[in-house]
Order: sequence, then structure tokens, then C-alpha cells
Amino acid sequence: MSHSLDIRIYYEDTDAGGIVYYANYLKYMERARTEMLREKKFLSSESLSKGAGFVVANLSIKYKASAKLDDLITVRTRLKERKNARLVLQQDIYKDAQLLTESEITLAYVDLNGRPAKLPNNII
Amino acid sequence: MSHSLDIRIYYEDTDAGGIVYYANYLKYMERARTEMLREKKFLSSESLSKGAGFVVANLSIKYKASAKLDDLITVRTRLKERKNARLVLQQDIYKDAQLLTESEITLAYVDLNGRPAKLPNNII
Amino acid sequence: MSHSLDIRIYYEDTDAGGIVYYANYLKYMERARTEMLREKKFLSSESLSKGAGFVVANLSIKYKASAKLDDLITVRTRLKERKNARLVLQQDIYKDAQLLTESEITLAYVDLNGRPAKLPNNII
Amino acid sequence: MSHSLDIRIYYEDTDAGGIVYYANYLKYMERARTEMLREKKFLSSESLSKGAGFVVANLSIKYKASAKLDDLITVRTRLKERKNARLVLQQDIYKDAQLLTESEITLAYVDLNGRPAKLPNNII
Repeated sequence: MSHSLDIRIYYEDTDAGGIVYYANYLKYMERARTEMLREKKFLSSESLSKGAGFVVANLSIKYKASAKLDDLITVRTRLKERKNARLVLQQDIYKDAQLLTESEITLAYVDLNGRPAKLPNNII
Repeated sequence: MSHSLDIRIYYEDTDAGGIVYYANYLKYMERARTEMLREKKFLSSESLSKGAGFVVANLSIKYKASAKLDDLITVRTRLKERKNARLVLQQDIYKDAQLLTESEITLAYVDLNGRPAKLPNNII
Repeated sequence: MSHSLDIRIYYEDTDAGGIVYYANYLKYMERARTEMLREKKFLSSESLSKGAGFVVANLSIKYKASAKLDDLITVRTRLKERKNARLVLQQDIYKDAQLLTESEITLAYVDLNGRPAKLPNNII
Repeated sequence: MSHSLDIRIYYEDTDAGGIVYYANYLKYMERARTEMLREKKFLSSESLSKGAGFVVANLSIKYKASAKLDDLITVRTRLKERKNARLVLQQDIYKDAQLLTESEITLAYVDLNGRPAKLPNNII
């Protein structure tokens, strides 16, 4: 399973250094995961109303280059592994052919008490 | 001049009350203004590199109803008035036919010292 | 009732224009309201767990000058009016003696369905 | 060198899941780094005006438990290594004695073109 999402950079995304603030790349990655799951008919809001949802268990990210105001960037997401209530994803962000960030992220599917819940079958 | 922009609501937009955090509607309004200007070939990044840009001089907003996770909302923007270095806009946000927020906003076009600059001709 | 809260400006608060992003002043105003209410023993989290909370009904704000990275700003909050489930507040933000923003804001105390709830007695 | 910073959780920090949004912990870590450096007389704004600043080169973070609305959390920062234009930091976030997140982060000190710059001597 792989997925691609284009995202425009606005003033809200940038900081006084003239580049995208480093925490915001995690927002773009979450938007991309949400859209990838939406294509599989998994809705965050439906899952939440049933008392479950994905949380990030761990994440590593390398920042290679920076996005700037008005850039159009692309988040590429690829499922690396699924086991029980966990998904491991590779999420890389590009501006055209240039790699901006590289990331591996582990998601856990949990109930409202933070305990592992059964992963929906339809999501991969 | 009028413009419409659709925006998806993600986890980043919401708060513990289960609805979109009130300051975030201002982000959506800024995205919509940016896209409206982009259609007129005005780029924020180009303007910034020349040492000028739009700032918000004042804003009033009424919150009528709340957007929620996964909602698709629409920002409708309409130019009400242009005078010298100022634009007055009406920006309303809808979820389908339901009005969520109503806003009037005055933008000033200024240089890096905050002094009024000449509005580009092409923008309206 | 009046209240004052100091807030430091970090990279996360600024944008590529080199100043604080306009929506972020609303975050500072909400932090100040929260702290003012905390002094009155009103906790947002307790209220939320009982299914009620404050929402912003409307807001007007004038932007007079901009805060920058590393600035220490002060949010001054004053209760102007209380009626039933509504509070009207004046919230102004200063950097030292310089006025940055001026705002009037109306809060509604509502239940989870957005219907007016009884304002806690202890809050003013 | 080690440093500790307390941070209050507001509505802006939380999401519809009722917990702090995962990207926001990176904001708290950046606030803590900024304050640690401020104690060493290093100001981000001064550095920026000279055309240099810290950027994050890479980061790994483990999310162990979640902060919630009204929580008071503590970011503990410790310098692990300094070499040339790079600092490696350990930054862990606690709620009282409970570990929420654990992170290792590498900062690069760069000029406006993203090239390594000489680390100021006073910072450690």
C-alpha cells in the first residue's frame, strides 16, 4: 500500500527563519495518513466515536532540506509492516524531486484507555 | 471578486472539546485569501522577497456553529472594498449549507517597517 | 475582575514575515482566560468532564503592532459584562508599554450540544 | 549541561482524541531548548539577525503516555554531545514522575543557506 498527498505551504506553516517550522512536517504526515486511510473507508471520526483511534508510538525523522512559503510539497506514504495493533509506515516528503524529510513511524491502534485495540480489517 | 476554497478538517485542527479550535478558522481564512490572490498571479513569497506583504489590520468574527474532525468546509471570500493600501473582505465559512463563521477583515499592504505600501495593480 | 499574563514568543509563534502569525494572538488570549479562570478555581478540564465549557461566540480584534521572536508580551484581561451564560471580556496585548492588539470577546458557556448552560457561580 | 522547563497544557495543545496532539511535543522541546540557550545568553533573535540559527537535523521520539488539558508537564533537556556545528540533546517530557515522551535530537547550527556555521562558544 502506498499513497501520495500534495500539500501547499502557507504563512501558518512557516517561521521567522523563513522556512517551515520543524514540527509542522508531522502535521503533513498525519494528514497523509488520514487520507490514505480514508481511501480504505477508514474514517478517524467514526473510529473516535467508537472509542478507538491511532496514536503514534514512535517516530524518527531526518530533515534534509526545508520547504518554504508557497511551496507545493508531496507526502509519500508506504506501509512497511502490520502486526496486531501496530502499523509501521515510511513517510517521506518531497518538493518535486528533492527529498525534504525522511521518516519511519509506528502507529498503535488503541482504545480510550490507551490499550491496544483490534485493527480494523479493511485498512490494508 | 469572489472565491471559494474547500478545506478538510484533521486532528491538528481540533481540540479536546471535540471541535475545531477557534483560532484555526483564521488559518483557513488566510489560506483562502492566499489562493484567491494566487489566481490573480499574486504570490506571497514573491511579495515577501520584495519586502512587502499583507497584514491583518482588524478582524471581526462571529462563531455560529462548529466544524468537527473529517468535515469538509468551504471558505467563501468576497472583496467588499479597496482603497489605497487596504482591502476589506467578507469571509464566511460553511459546512455544506450551514454557516459556521462570519467574518469581516481589513488587510493592509505594508513594507517591512509596517508602513503602507502601494497595492499591486493586478490583485483585483 | 482583571488579570495579567506574560507570554514568551518562540519560533513556533512566528511566520516567514518575521512576526507573530495573526491567529496566534487568539491562542495567547485563550491562555490568559484559562489562567484567569484557574485563579477562580474554575478548571477547563473539570468543566469538560462534566460536559460543559466556554466557547467563543464572537470576537473583534485590532492589530496595532507586531510581536517578534523572543519578545515577552503581556495579555491584560478585564471582565466587562456578565449576563446569564455569557461573559464579555476586553483582552489587550502589550509589549512593555506598546499596545499590540486590542480585542473584545464574548464567551458563551454551553453544554456538549452547544446549548447555553448555567455559568458556574464561582467564576466572577 | 541540563535544564528543566515547566509547561501548561491549554486547549490549543489538545485534539479531538482528548490528548495533546503528537506534533505539539516538538514545540515544547523547542521552547525548552530556547530557554536553556537563553540562560547561556544565546538569543535566537540575535542569532537570526546575524544570519544563523539552529535547525533540527534529526529526531527520534517515543510516545509513552499522553498529556491532557490543564496538565503541567516538564521538559528535561540534557546535552549529550557537542561536535563542530552540531549538538546532540536528550529531551524527555514528564508529568510529575511519569515519563510521557523520550527523545534524542540533533541540532545543526547553520547560516541562511543551510551551510554549517561556527557554533557560538558561549552556549555550553
